Amino acid sequence: MLLGGQTWEFKSKPVIIGSAAVVGPEEGQGPLAADFDYVFDNLEIGESTWEKAERKLLEHAGTTALMHAGITKDQLQYFVGGDLMNQIISASFAARSFGAPYLGVFGACSTSMESLAIASMMVDSGNAGYVLAGTASHNCTAEKQFRYPTEYGSQKPPTAQYTVTGSGCAVVAAKGNGPRVTHATIGKIQDLGITDPFNMGAAMAPAAADTIVSHFRDTGRTPADYDLVVTGDLASVGLPIVKDILKRDGVPMEQTDFQDCGLMIYDREKQPQVIAGGSGCGCSASVTYGHILKRIASGNLKRVLVVATGALLSPLSYQQGESIPCIAHAVAIEKEGI
Amino acid sequence: MLLGGQTWEFKSKPVIIGSAAVVGPEEGQGPLAADFDYVFDNLEIGESTWEKAERKLLEHAGTTALMHAGITKDQLQYFVGGDLMNQIISASFAARSFGAPYLGVFGACSTSMESLAIASMMVDSGNAGYVLAGTASHNCTAEKQFRYPTEYGSQKPPTAQYTVTGSGCAVVAAKGNGPRVTHATIGKIQDLGITDPFNMGAAMAPAAADTIVSHFRDTGRTPADYDLVVTGDLASVGLPIVKDILKRDGVPMEQTDFQDCGLMIYDREKQPQVIAGGSGCGCSASVTYGHILKRIASGNLKRVLVVATGALLSPLSYQQGESIPCIAHAVAIEKEGI
Repeated sequence: MLLGGQTWEFKSKPVIIGSAAVVGPEEGQGPLAADFDYVFDNLEIGESTWEKAERKLLEHAGTTALMHAGITKDQLQYFVGGDLMNQIISASFAARSFGAPYLGVFGACSTSMESLAIASMMVDSGNAGYVLAGTASHNCTAEKQFRYPTEYGSQKPPTAQYTVTGSGCAVVAAKGNGPRVTHATIGKIQDLGITDPFNMGAAMAPAAADTIVSHFRDTGRTPADYDLVVTGDLASVGLPIVKDILKRDGVPMEQTDFQDCGLMIYDREKQPQVIAGGSGCGCSASVTYGHILKRIASGNLKRVLVVATGALLSPLSYQQGESIPCIAHAVAIEKEGI
Repeated sequence: MLLGGQTWEFKSKPVIIGSAAVVGPEEGQGPLAADFDYVFDNLEIGESTWEKAERKLLEHAGTTALMHAGITKDQLQYFVGGDLMNQIISASFAARSFGAPYLGVFGACSTSMESLAIASMMVDSGNAGYVLAGTASHNCTAEKQFRYPTEYGSQKPPTAQYTVTGSGCAVVAAKGNGPRVTHATIGKIQDLGITDPFNMGAAMAPAAADTIVSHFRDTGRTPADYDLVVTGDLASVGLPIVKDILKRDGVPMEQTDFQDCGLMIYDREKQPQVIAGGSGCGCSASVTYGHILKRIASGNLKRVLVVATGALLSPLSYQQGESIPCIAHAVAIEKEGI
């Protein structure tokens, strides 16, 4: 149900009956390592190309999520997914493997929550009983496509982020046990004119702020209603900016724990190669479906707002002098029975 | 409501209260010219790059659809769109201009019906009152990105299709007058191993057949229930293949008029440059939202099934020796009051 503004309330509270997060070796050395379902010890993920490696991450996370949900591929009714690759080939080829009817989506790194929002709407509206939502990214595919092949060893400014090698998937269902999806706030494009693709955090911060403000306005909730508000991947540059914007706008974010997936997934002191922190579709997906859902399951968190951010540029739009349109989609997840 | 299988039935029958189709000069010389809302007389669409031209087509069609719907940008609640460009920049930059909350989707040329299906579900489930669904393609952006820049003048085999320069948009609403969206059948990936990107029609035909068979199975309808079943863009190679498959499967397609948007939009005798026929997101979108909806409005057609097909390859997946995963999404549209 449209609650007003840009937020959906899912009256039936669709259930995440199973989820999984798989990551690469560097994420497996970070502080959340124990929460991931599988850590690959090689960036190649046993494949012959980086793109096939990324697809395999998604297939592995999806298959594991189905196993955790206790359903078979035949029972799966829909797959909603996307990724950063041109023509979202990781999701489309994984969809071939999953075999279910498929809706491809794209919101750059916000794809994680865009797919969860659509999957939850499908379930809440009676249009599906079981939907797999998921996304993936790989450091080397993203470097190659958006910047330079890793092998060039090009230098980066201190605002640059590090694309997560990882995937996260969730099975959303009409019935069952698990965390419940209660709301989704769909973001509007925000573009304040930033043109530097090595400063995504600053570009995306206004989109995160706008969606957070909209979510509280539409739901009548306040930050105090959440144990954790977590942005997708603003990292060390973007998170302070969104905090400043929300402070200026009078949103009492001090009432909650306010974190960023891009800062949670790596130890920036021990892993200086990540520079400002993590990014990529797999960042918020693996942190949410690995770490956060486990904290909800353990009773450590009762209600969380995940605000996944996306920078909707392409290398071509950048080369043509365009600024970076950004978006953020927020999904509210709560422990069952609260 | 999930009708079973992979088909949604929209009980409230969301209304297309306004639509628009705009095209380039070649489409304006084709047999459907009179049905388009605007024909640009130049491929540049007055812009400095092909990509900006494609975006302008989408903005023009979207703005015109809003005008036809009698609603303002402020009343628009969501935009669901996508396109063929890397990172769907045409839709994302157009979303910046529309200003509404935005869901980016990608299904290659099937994006036209994927976006209409999602928009209709949003309206049917009470999650939106007004949603704009739309997509666009441009011959020169597609040639440049997927094949060779047009300026190279490269030759093509007789199975090749010609990307339509055009855009189509529809405003889907909970109330109002206009054609009604009654069902959507979401496709599964079909991949029979074709690797030739100059033979999309043959690659996509099995996806169209699978979705058509699923639609009739799920709804209990037969081809006789439709005045027209129209595939997205299989063109002269793909349409005979899908007809053969459906004949083999015992689907009595002779009960209906069975056409293809890629064959309708051009006059292949007078426009030999289109080779096998039209393709691209803008093909099924402009034919549906221009031509077909006008035939429904005039009473010439009562019920139509639009089966938009998409080839979900990227230049990179092709270069890496992958076959072409294909999909088709079908949406049933009927005249109000029947």
